[in-house]
Amino acid sequence: MILLDGKKVSTELKNTIAKDVSKMIADGKPVPHLTAVLVGKDGASETYVNHKEKDCHEVGFRSTVLRFPDTIDQERLLDEIRRINADSDVSGLIVQLPLPKHISEQKVIETISPDKDVDGFHPLNAGKMLLGLPSFVSATPAGILELLKYYGVETSGKNCAVLGRSNIVGRPMANLLSQKSYPGDCTVTICHSRTKNLKDVCLQADILIAALGSPEFVGADMIKHGAVVVDVGITRVPAATKSGFRLLGDVKFDEVAAKASYITPVPGGVGPMTRVALMKNTLAAAQKIYSR
Amino acid sequence: MILLDGKKVSTELKNTIAKDVSKMIADGKPVPHLTAVLVGKDGASETYVNHKEKDCHEVGFRSTVLRFPDTIDQERLLDEIRRINADSDVSGLIVQLPLPKHISEQKVIETISPDKDVDGFHPLNAGKMLLGLPSFVSATPAGILELLKYYGVETSGKNCAVLGRSNIVGRPMANLLSQKSYPGDCTVTICHSRTKNLKDVCLQADILIAALGSPEFVGADMIKHGAVVVDVGITRVPAATKSGFRLLGDVKFDEVAAKASYITPVPGGVGPMTRVALMKNTLAAAQKIYSR
Repeated sequence: MILLDGKKVSTELKNTIAKDVSKMIADGKPVPHLTAVLVGKDGASETYVNHKEKDCHEVGFRSTVLRFPDTIDQERLLDEIRRINADSDVSGLIVQLPLPKHISEQKVIETISPDKDVDGFHPLNAGKMLLGLPSFVSATPAGILELLKYYGVETSGKNCAVLGRSNIVGRPMANLLSQKSYPGDCTVTICHSRTKNLKDVCLQADILIAALGSPEFVGADMIKHGAVVVDVGITRVPAATKSGFRLLGDVKFDEVAAKASYITPVPGGVGPMTRVALMKNTLAAAQKIYSR
Repeated sequence: MILLDGKKVSTELKNTIAKDVSKMIADGKPVPHLTAVLVGKDGASETYVNHKEKDCHEVGFRSTVLRFPDTIDQERLLDEIRRINADSDVSGLIVQLPLPKHISEQKVIETISPDKDVDGFHPLNAGKMLLGLPSFVSATPAGILELLKYYGVETSGKNCAVLGRSNIVGRPMANLLSQKSYPGDCTVTICHSRTKNLKDVCLQADILIAALGSPEFVGADMIKHGAVVVDVGITRVPAATKSGFRLLGDVKFDEVAAKASYITPVPGGVGPMTRVALMKNTLAAAQKIYSR
């Protein structure tokens, strides 16, 4: 069994990005600049935005966090987004979700300029991804592709089960892995809450992407011998630790690892790859190219 | 076995559209108007455009065909598209593909206003479809959904195999049928040229969508008893008929029909549903709403 070590790979990728940034500076080009918009005081959102600032710092990007109270008007927020869209000083723009209920997330997403949409949430980027055109791919699927590529995991003609059909993980993952590309050319089955024979589908999967958000849902009895297992789930469960919780993936790591050929740990697998994928997208946005 | 009779259903839907148009006229609203752009003298393209004109005539739409020689400059063609985009008199705009090699089809598609893109080929419409947002869905998958709905075919939790991953049929079909909707909520497997165990996947399918363009590829040995079989393939093969050819689907109709619960004939199945779906999209465009 080989560990798909997202921590190691993301560190290498960050070093590469940092070198690219140094070169950009040496060439007199502007430094990539990520602006994050944060509305309200959600604890998890604060953490994510802090991570993004830290990552930007590590790779040498400029980073701005614009904070607004959760009472902000939708129109005011959209105006801020339009202002950032027009600001040539900003390469990439993300709006941390969730937003307060009185604000339409879809409206916010569609107001972000597709050229700065480094989260890949704008329908234009989603459509280009679907059609196999250059686009910004959302960070989790983009990070998983990087990880599979790094380890040279064979994908062509493999059966792949994607558990979960969310717009930001399961659905793009299924589409990307079924495209004529590498990583890709898989025969993909997309599973969800209505799937009746989930275990059968999993047992036929050479590659299994678990993105359900259901802690330790996938056991060894659902895994084909030699399968590649990618665990996207990260759920906080109460535990007698200093923080008061521990992180659990969708996969029962120990027993599944015993059968798998490759497997991502939680934490240290998909999480850091997601973070570095956002940095890659931001670099691409600064270079006025798409990341894929 | 029940025939999924696209000819009958499309006729009923056309009657409904015609009534809607009469009502629009009675209400003093403008008549839906489809403009087709045809470049060069491709025989199949001429036929398709003639069908579209005939369909428009039947449902009471206005129809315009703009013909250009295959020597037209790309920029000149894009200017024509921009002019039609700006023409409030036109509800829907399609550019018949293929185009001559010196013209970028992608550039042409992306120049069509998404609000008039009744073919649903623009990446913005593809993305909205993917994300489950209101959009124009390309005519073949839209027509198939109408057909399944008309016959009340159960889809929730069913295993569905989609054979073919094209951007205009297989891929949207797979995404639509896996969405939380009706028809939808299927466990979808998308198969293609690299799929190794195609027969196994087909044998597990409660619903099989064949969109390979490979005449009579799917035989009874690949079909589960009681499966719903939708045949998208239409290939002309030479034959001793008046026209010199006959149309073959991707499915060996007689032997597969003997095992299926529902099946589309070729011709008279998906073909007429595709045609009426374009009319539905055009009506929706005229009403300034999306068709789905």
